[in-house]
Amino acid sequence: MADLFGKSLNKEVPIPYYYQLKEILLDYITNQHEDRDRPIPTEVEISANFNISRPTVRQAINELVVEGYLIRQKGKGTFITKPKISQAFLQNLDSFNNEMVKKGLEPTTKVLGLEVLSCDEKVGEALKVPTGSKVIQLRRLRFANGEPIVYVVTYLPFDRCQPIMEKDLEFESLYGILRDVCGLSLLKAVRNLEAVLAGEYEAKILDIDKGAPIQYIESITYLTDETPIEYSLAKYRGDRSQFTFELGIR
Amino acid sequence: MADLFGKSLNKEVPIPYYYQLKEILLDYITNQHEDRDRPIPTEVEISANFNISRPTVRQAINELVVEGYLIRQKGKGTFITKPKISQAFLQNLDSFNNEMVKKGLEPTTKVLGLEVLSCDEKVGEALKVPTGSKVIQLRRLRFANGEPIVYVVTYLPFDRCQPIMEKDLEFESLYGILRDVCGLSLLKAVRNLEAVLAGEYEAKILDIDKGAPIQYIESITYLTDETPIEYSLAKYRGDRSQFTFELGIR
Repeated sequence: MADLFGKSLNKEVPIPYYYQLKEILLDYITNQHEDRDRPIPTEVEISANFNISRPTVRQAINELVVEGYLIRQKGKGTFITKPKISQAFLQNLDSFNNEMVKKGLEPTTKVLGLEVLSCDEKVGEALKVPTGSKVIQLRRLRFANGEPIVYVVTYLPFDRCQPIMEKDLEFESLYGILRDVCGLSLLKAVRNLEAVLAGEYEAKILDIDKGAPIQYIESITYLTDETPIEYSLAKYRGDRSQFTFELGIR
Repeated sequence: MADLFGKSLNKEVPIPYYYQLKEILLDYITNQHEDRDRPIPTEVEISANFNISRPTVRQAINELVVEGYLIRQKGKGTFITKPKISQAFLQNLDSFNNEMVKKGLEPTTKVLGLEVLSCDEKVGEALKVPTGSKVIQLRRLRFANGEPIVYVVTYLPFDRCQPIMEKDLEFESLYGILRDVCGLSLLKAVRNLEAVLAGEYEAKILDIDKGAPIQYIESITYLTDETPIEYSLAKYRGDRSQFTFELGIR
C-alpha cells in the first residue's frame, strides 16, 4: 500500500500516538495537501497507513477540527479549512482596510452603531476622563471578501472627536479622520491580547460557533502629548486570524 | 432595595439585555468586587436588581463562565476567577523566569523531554536547515506558583547548540546558555500569534478543560547574522495569560 504521508509514528517515545499523528496531519495539511476542494484521506485509509486503531485516528482528527484546521462535511469527507489571514496589526497602526488590500482581500465594514454615551468607569479610566463624560461609541463589523473577521467597539472622547459623528465610517478611515479632520497627532498604541471563547453574541455576528476561539485585543492609542484618544475592544475570529510581528532584542 | 451595581440597563438601544448585563457584570468583576473568596450576587438578586428574567441573567453569567471570568462552585455560589498574568513576552526576550519574578510569582519548570531528532519539513523550514537534519527538541512545562501556565516545544540546530544536551533546563536559562555557553549573539525574534482551543493533550498537561482557550505563539529567534537559532511553539493557558505591549507609530 502506498505511504500516504511519507512518515511513521515513533513507538519509542512516550508521546501518545494520536498526538504524533496530529502533528503529522498538521504538517500534511500545511505542506502537502494543496487542494482544498478535495477531502483528506479517510479514517480507514489513515488507520491502515499507520497501522493504528480508528479511534486513535478519530481523536487526532477531532482535535484538528476543534482547533480549526479541518472541517467535516457530511457525506463528503474531511476538508482543510481556509488559511488564516496574517495581519501586521500588532506591529503598526495601519488600518484594517490597508491590511486587507495588501493581502489581496476586499475589505468592507458595516457600522452597527455610532452614538454618544456617558462613559462607564472602565472606558473613563482607559481614556483618562471622568466616569460619565461624553464619549463616542462606534461599533463596527469588518469583513474580508464578504466574510466577517473582527467585531470592534471603539470609544473616543466626544469633545476632541466630534466630527466623527458626521462621517460615514463604512467608507472613511477612522485614523484618517482623526488626523486630517480632527487635527490630531498620534504617537503610539498599547495593546493587550487574550485568547477567549466566543459568547452567543460574538458567535452570531462573526458567524462562528459559540465556544470558538477568539483573539481579543484591547488597544489604547495615544496622542503625542500622551493623551489617550482611542480605546478599542476588538474580537477577531480565531479561525481566520493570525498576528505576526518582529521584535528586536534589547 | 439596594442598587447592587450602580447601573441600569439601557432599554432604548438594540443591544440584547443579557449582553448589556454581561458588560455591567464584567465591570463589576473588574472594579468593584474585590474579594475573590466571596461569591458574586445570586441570579435571584441580579434579576430583581435589574427587573429582568432569570434566564437572561443566567445567559450573561454563562457567557462569563465560558469566557473564563467567573466560575461556579456547587452549593457555594459563583466566584470571580484569578486575574490573568500580564506578560511582556511579546515585547522583549526576557525569560519566562524573569517575567514571573517581576510579577512576584514563583516560576518553576518541568522538562518533559530533551532529545536529538531528525527534523521534519516544518522545523527544517523554520530553522533553515534541510529536512532530516539533527535538531534538539526540548519540551517544557512552565509553572507560576505551582500552576501550569505554558507548554513550550523548542527546536534548536544540534550543531550550534549541542552543549544544551548537558544542561539542566529546569534550573538554567535557555537564552543564558545560548549566549554564554554556545557563544551566540541574538538579534531579534519573529512571533506569530493565534487563538486556538485546547486539545486533549494540552488540556491534560495544562490542567484545563478540552476546548478551553489557548494563546498559541510560534517564535523564531535569529542571530545577528540572521541565521535562525531557535524555533518554539508555546501554548499558553488563555484563562491565565494576557500579553501587553506598546508600539510606536511609524
